[in-house]
Amino acid sequence: MPEASIASAGPVDPALIEDLVAASRILAQHGVLDAWGHVSMRHPNNPERYLLSCARAAGLVTADDIMEFDIDSNPVDQRGRRMFLERYIHGEAFRARPDVNAVVHSHSPTVIPFTVTDEPLRAVSHIASFLANGCPCFEIRDVGLTQGLLVTTKEQGAALAKVLGNNPVALLRGHGNLVVAGDIPRAVHRALYTEMNAQQLATALSFRKPIKYVQPDEMQDPKRLIDAWEIWKHEAMKDMK
Amino acid sequence: MPEASIASAGPVDPALIEDLVAASRILAQHGVLDAWGHVSMRHPNNPERYLLSCARAAGLVTADDIMEFDIDSNPVDQRGRRMFLERYIHGEAFRARPDVNAVVHSHSPTVIPFTVTDEPLRAVSHIASFLANGCPCFEIRDVGLTQGLLVTTKEQGAALAKVLGNNPVALLRGHGNLVVAGDIPRAVHRALYTEMNAQQLATALSFRKPIKYVQPDEMQDPKRLIDAWEIWKHEAMKDMK
Amino acid sequence: MPEASIASAGPVDPALIEDLVAASRILAQHGVLDAWGHVSMRHPNNPERYLLSCARAAGLVTADDIMEFDIDSNPVDQRGRRMFLERYIHGEAFRARPDVNAVVHSHSPTVIPFTVTDEPLRAVSHIASFLANGCPCFEIRDVGLTQGLLVTTKEQGAALAKVLGNNPVALLRGHGNLVVAGDIPRAVHRALYTEMNAQQLATALSFRKPIKYVQPDEMQDPKRLIDAWEIWKHEAMKDMK
Amino acid sequence: MPEASIASAGPVDPALIEDLVAASRILAQHGVLDAWGHVSMRHPNNPERYLLSCARAAGLVTADDIMEFDIDSNPVDQRGRRMFLERYIHGEAFRARPDVNAVVHSHSPTVIPFTVTDEPLRAVSHIASFLANGCPCFEIRDVGLTQGLLVTTKEQGAALAKVLGNNPVALLRGHGNLVVAGDIPRAVHRALYTEMNAQQLATALSFRKPIKYVQPDEMQDPKRLIDAWEIWKHEAMKDMK
Repeated sequence: MPEASIASAGPVDPALIEDLVAASRILAQHGVLDAWGHVSMRHPNNPERYLLSCARAAGLVTADDIMEFDIDSNPVDQRGRRMFLERYIHGEAFRARPDVNAVVHSHSPTVIPFTVTDEPLRAVSHIASFLANGCPCFEIRDVGLTQGLLVTTKEQGAALAKVLGNNPVALLRGHGNLVVAGDIPRAVHRALYTEMNAQQLATALSFRKPIKYVQPDEMQDPKRLIDAWEIWKHEAMKDMK
Repeated sequence: MPEASIASAGPVDPALIEDLVAASRILAQHGVLDAWGHVSMRHPNNPERYLLSCARAAGLVTADDIMEFDIDSNPVDQRGRRMFLERYIHGEAFRARPDVNAVVHSHSPTVIPFTVTDEPLRAVSHIASFLANGCPCFEIRDVGLTQGLLVTTKEQGAALAKVLGNNPVALLRGHGNLVVAGDIPRAVHRALYTEMNAQQLATALSFRKPIKYVQPDEMQDPKRLIDAWEIWKHEAMKDMK
Repeated sequence: MPEASIASAGPVDPALIEDLVAASRILAQHGVLDAWGHVSMRHPNNPERYLLSCARAAGLVTADDIMEFDIDSNPVDQRGRRMFLERYIHGEAFRARPDVNAVVHSHSPTVIPFTVTDEPLRAVSHIASFLANGCPCFEIRDVGLTQGLLVTTKEQGAALAKVLGNNPVALLRGHGNLVVAGDIPRAVHRALYTEMNAQQLATALSFRKPIKYVQPDEMQDPKRLIDAWEIWKHEAMKDMK
Repeated sequence: MPEASIASAGPVDPALIEDLVAASRILAQHGVLDAWGHVSMRHPNNPERYLLSCARAAGLVTADDIMEFDIDSNPVDQRGRRMFLERYIHGEAFRARPDVNAVVHSHSPTVIPFTVTDEPLRAVSHIASFLANGCPCFEIRDVGLTQGLLVTTKEQGAALAKVLGNNPVALLRGHGNLVVAGDIPRAVHRALYTEMNAQQLATALSFRKPIKYVQPDEMQDPKRLIDAWEIWKHEAMKDMK
C-alpha cells in the first residue's frame, strides 16, 4: 500500500493521547492485551478519523506511536511505520457506531473458551452488567476463510461490526473479542470485566447448577462506573519508564 | 444531599487509622478489593459513628481519605469529598451488630460464582472455619429492583444486615459479599480467606465426590488467628509510597 | 508452660541457618506457606533436637528468629519468644523418622481440596514422582476433636507421624499437609511440587478421562533433583532486605 | 564421560547468543520453564552443532553459560561444566529436523494434564494455530523404563524425535513437551502459546459442549507472528541484572 497523503484532522490534546496510551498499558498489565491486541479512539475533531498506535505490543506503546487513520483505515501520515493489519476492526466499528468513541480488540484469555463453544457469555457480576444481554459471536468463515483467522479487510471489519450490532462486546470465534464504548475509560472497564466475568462464569458453570445471570433490568447506567480509572492508570503508568 | 454539620466524635489514634488504611491496601493487594470495594471501622469513641474512606479505590486510600459518618451514614465533615454510594452497607451493619467493629464490602472474585448458584459456600479449610455454618445470600430483588444491583439506601442496607444475622459473612447475589468482625485484622482475615476458601471449594467440587466440610464443632476460636496481620501489613505498606 | 532450661546442642553453621531461612522465604514466595506454615530442620549436632522459627510468618523469618527445640518440642532457650502451637508436628516427625532432617507443615492451597474428598493425590508429573505411591490422609477426629483442627499436642503429632509412615507427604483433612525429606532443599522441592502436582491433577481430572499416574517404578531417585535450589534461593533472597 | 576435544564451529554473533539467553529468561518469566527446562539453537556456522546452556535454571542463564555441542550431544569444550542429562532431546531433534533451528524442552504446567489423559491438545486460539493438527504424545515406556521418566540417551532422544515427526510440538507423558521452530522467537512463541492454549482448552472442555477447534486450513503462516519478540525480550531482560 502506497503512503497516503491526507490532511490531518489536527493535533489532539496530549491528555487524551495519554489516556489512550494508558489504556494500552492498563489492558496489557491486566493480561487482557497480549503482544498483539490494540486500543483506539475516535479523533475528537473529526468523527471520520481515529487514533491507533503503530504495530507495537500494547505494553510498550508510547504517545509517539499513536497514528491517525481515516475511516477507511488509511494512515494519514505513515512515515514508514508498520501498521496493525487488523485496524479495519477499529475503522468499521467507528463507522457503524456513531455512539462509539473507543474500541478495543483483544485476545482476552478466558473469553476464548466462550468463542469456541456455544456456552453463552453473559453477566454474572454487576460490574459486568453491560453483558446482561449476552455477546454475539462472529464466525469469520461466514465471510470467507482467512489465514490465521485474522480480520484484515474492510469487508471483514464491516461484517464484524454488523454482528456487533448495538452491543458493547462481540466475540470472534477462536480469536478474541471486540469491545466498544463511549470513551476510553469505559472501553477499558468493559474489556477488563469481560475477562473477569468470563472467569467467574466458567467457575459458576463448573458447579453444574442453574445460573442466576444479571438481568437486563439490573444493568448499571453506562454513564456510571468510571472512578476506577484513577487506580488503573496510576498502577499502569508507574510501571512506565 | 446537603453537607451535614454534626459534631465529630473526636480524633482517632493514628495507629488505628493506619490499620484501617492498611486493611484497604492489603485487600487490594490480594485482589479481594477491586477499584470499588471498601473497609470501615466503628469509631472507637462513639459506637454510633464509623470511619470509611471517601470514594477512592482501596489500593490508593491514605489516612487523609478517611471520613467520619454517623450511624445513618451521613458524613460528619464532608468538605466536598465524594462518598461511596454503598456506605449504607457499613452503617446498617454497625447498627445491627453491636459486636462488630470492622466491615468489608467486596466483589471478591471467586465468591461471585457462589452468589449466582445455590451451591453453598462453606468452609473446607480450617483457616476459613468461620464459614463452617455457611453464608446466607442476599437477593436485592426481595427489597426492590435497583440499577446495577447496588445497595444505596438505608433500607437496603438494613435488609442486608438482617440477612447477615449473626454470621460473619453474607453473600450478595451477582455482586459480592459483606464481611464483619470484631476488629480490623479479623475482618481482613475473613475477607481474604472467604476468597481462598471459595477457590478451594470450587476445586474440590470439580472432583464430583462428597465434600467433608469443616464442621461447626471444629471452628477456631474467633479470638485466635491474627498473627498474620504482621506480614499482611508489612507487604501491603512496603508497596505504599 | 514454664521457660525450660536445657543445654543447647551447640551453635549451627550459619550457612545451614541461612538455608532454613531461605526455605521459609521460598515457600512463602511460591504461595505454599501462608502466614502460618513453618519449616524446620534437625539439629546437625544432635538428632534429638530441631530448629524452627518462633511464631512468625514464613515470609518474614530471619536467622534471629530460629529457635532450638528438644525432641519433645520444648524450647531450649525461649527468651520470651512466642512459639508455634503446632511445633509437635515437627518434633514427632523427627522422632518417628530417623531418615528425615527437614519438615514442612503447610496449608498448600490446592492440596486442601484433596484432603476433603477421597480423590487421591498421586503423581501425574515426573517432578512430583515422589507422590507415585499417593499420600495418606490424617483425620484429626480419629485422635479427638480439636478446636480449629490444629495439631497442638505430642499425642496428636505422634498420631500424624504414624499416618505419615514411610511416605514423603501426608495430608491433614481440612488443614494442609506434612512434608518430610532428608534435607532442606529436598523438603522444599517436595512442598512446591506437591502443590503444583495438585493443580495439574485437578485439571487432568476435569477432563473426566482415565489418568495415567506416574508409576512407582518410574520414581526419580530421591537423591536427585536439587539443582533447582540455586534459583529458588536466589529469587527468594533478592526479595529479602 | 571424559571431556571431549572437538574443534568448535566458531564464534557466534553475540546478538544471537543474547536471543538464546533471552529465550530462557522469557520462558522462565512466563512460568513455562521451571528450574529444569531448557532452550537451544542450532549453530549458525555448522548444522551438526547446537548451543545450549550448562545445567542451570533457565531464569539464571547468562551468555557465559552457553556451551557448544555436537549433533551426538557431546560437549565441544566442557571445561568442567555440568551438562543437562536431557540434552539428547535437543541433539536428536536437530538431527531429525533440518528445518528446525531452535528447540525448547519444558514442563509447561498445563500441558501435563494433556499428557496423562487421552484428551487431545489442539488449537482453540488462532495464536496457537500451529497446534491445529494436534500434538503426538511420546510414551517413554515404549522405548524402555527410565528412572524419573527422563530422556537421557541418544536412543530415547531419537525415539522422541520420531514421535514428533513434522509437528511443531510433541507431548511427553507425565513429563512435559518438546517444541521446535525455525528460529528462537518462533520457538518461544510456540512454547508460550502451547501453555496458554492448554489453559484455554481446559476451560472450554469444562463447559461439556462441543469444541470448535481451529481448523488446519485456518493456520497462520509460520513466517508470521514474531512482532511479539520485542516486548517479551524487553520484559524478561529488564528483570536481568
